[in-house]
Amino acid sequence: MLPEAAARRIRLTLQYDGTGFRGWQRQPGCRTVQSELESVLARLLESTARTAAAGRTDRGVHATGQVVSLDVPAKWSAVELARALNALLPADIRVADAVAAEPDFHARFSAVARSYSYRIGTTGTALSPFRRRWCWPLARPLPEAVLDEAAQHFVGGHSFAAFAKAGQPERGDECMVHRSEWRVPNRHGIVYVVVANRFLHHMVRYMVGTMVDAALGVRPAGDIVALLAGAPGLVMSRPAPPEGLFLTRVYYPGDSLDEDVTDETVP
Amino acid sequence: MLPEAAARRIRLTLQYDGTGFRGWQRQPGCRTVQSELESVLARLLESTARTAAAGRTDRGVHATGQVVSLDVPAKWSAVELARALNALLPADIRVADAVAAEPDFHARFSAVARSYSYRIGTTGTALSPFRRRWCWPLARPLPEAVLDEAAQHFVGGHSFAAFAKAGQPERGDECMVHRSEWRVPNRHGIVYVVVANRFLHHMVRYMVGTMVDAALGVRPAGDIVALLAGAPGLVMSRPAPPEGLFLTRVYYPGDSLDEDVTDETVP
Repeated sequence: MLPEAAARRIRLTLQYDGTGFRGWQRQPGCRTVQSELESVLARLLESTARTAAAGRTDRGVHATGQVVSLDVPAKWSAVELARALNALLPADIRVADAVAAEPDFHARFSAVARSYSYRIGTTGTALSPFRRRWCWPLARPLPEAVLDEAAQHFVGGHSFAAFAKAGQPERGDECMVHRSEWRVPNRHGIVYVVVANRFLHHMVRYMVGTMVDAALGVRPAGDIVALLAGAPGLVMSRPAPPEGLFLTRVYYPGDSLDEDVTDETVP
Repeated sequence: MLPEAAARRIRLTLQYDGTGFRGWQRQPGCRTVQSELESVLARLLESTARTAAAGRTDRGVHATGQVVSLDVPAKWSAVELARALNALLPADIRVADAVAAEPDFHARFSAVARSYSYRIGTTGTALSPFRRRWCWPLARPLPEAVLDEAAQHFVGGHSFAAFAKAGQPERGDECMVHRSEWRVPNRHGIVYVVVANRFLHHMVRYMVGTMVDAALGVRPAGDIVALLAGAPGLVMSRPAPPEGLFLTRVYYPGDSLDEDVTDETVP
């Protein structure tokens, strides 16, 4: 770590196409967003820079508003750092914004909420070649009323144990969902938008998988309420595939959770 | 060719991401849109199907509204053909529409006008990873007023010899431009939209290259009028790169050329 006087904490907003990455987190022998970023930072800063991300996105998951904190020597301004990073990073990662942050700012621990979007292409095999990479291509019709009602059940504070990959018991499974709704942005598909204080492992993908099963009539819509209530004997739905999922925004103290999350970044 | 009674003429609307193709036209040993389409048709129809396209797009050029005509055995309906094609075509080509056409319909010779769009990403190296494939990433600011005025000069009937690759003298170089304008659809970039009865080889790319040179101050804006007037001694600008160019629509008798060409198909 740098001595305090010589360091500047920076907050980066990153966008990445998750297709070519094994997720955010550095892993030996894998191409990950963190390893690409830290390897470019090492070249620029001539020292090791440790980065922290608000959301450790999984393999194949995208981001339009990932937030990353790191320390750089004070001779680097945020603007100069962003310019240098964008010149050197591979084209599937981009720094959309960079600002100087308070010394105690931490991308993950300072965050009070996160927003994810999940995109479903509803035109099946006729899906536009310009959109196919970033959605779950579902050829079957999904009744909007079922999806809308299902999404409403998630709003509020619940245990999401039935909507998460097992194995994170240390922090509990309570989440507070502020927003949960389906949108129809264009004729290519539909988008699920969810804002919550925290998300368990694969949680959005399990939520979407369950809502889609209800919309397809594979399981009763009432199962969502039962699963949230911890009813025994119910089987989890399969999680929706990662390529439809985007981390779109991270909220910090002072940010309004009611502000609409419109996103024209992705097709 | 099929005997007339057994054949049905079909009009397909195709979308393709031109990145992976050496253009529309069949060429030995190259991956082209026509060769991919005709090879799938040969499997489906168990005979050779000859396709004709409205615009023979070049290597790297995209299409959201390419029109193709072909004959199929009458047992194939247009809807069934589209479904079968979309199931077998590679994901970078999609049939957006298929209808039965009059027996004398020809995608190229029946067309009365075509529309192209040219996309420029104006955010430079900070270009979104979700948009980078389909635009010309220009990092420098382009004054809108210069672009708008330049675009207006193209409207009407002119010789476009100074805006085309040499070597097509047999059909003349007169074109009638119905629409020529720049738009700002979002914060990621700008789009040039042009509608004309015909286009010479590389014509849109030369037009865009010249307008951008004028906007950058590399050459006087007045050069466009001079080039259209055939003034001697003027050097052509370099054509804009193919990855920003899209064939967006083909017009046939009865279609209104004044109808707006909005396009949400591409990011």
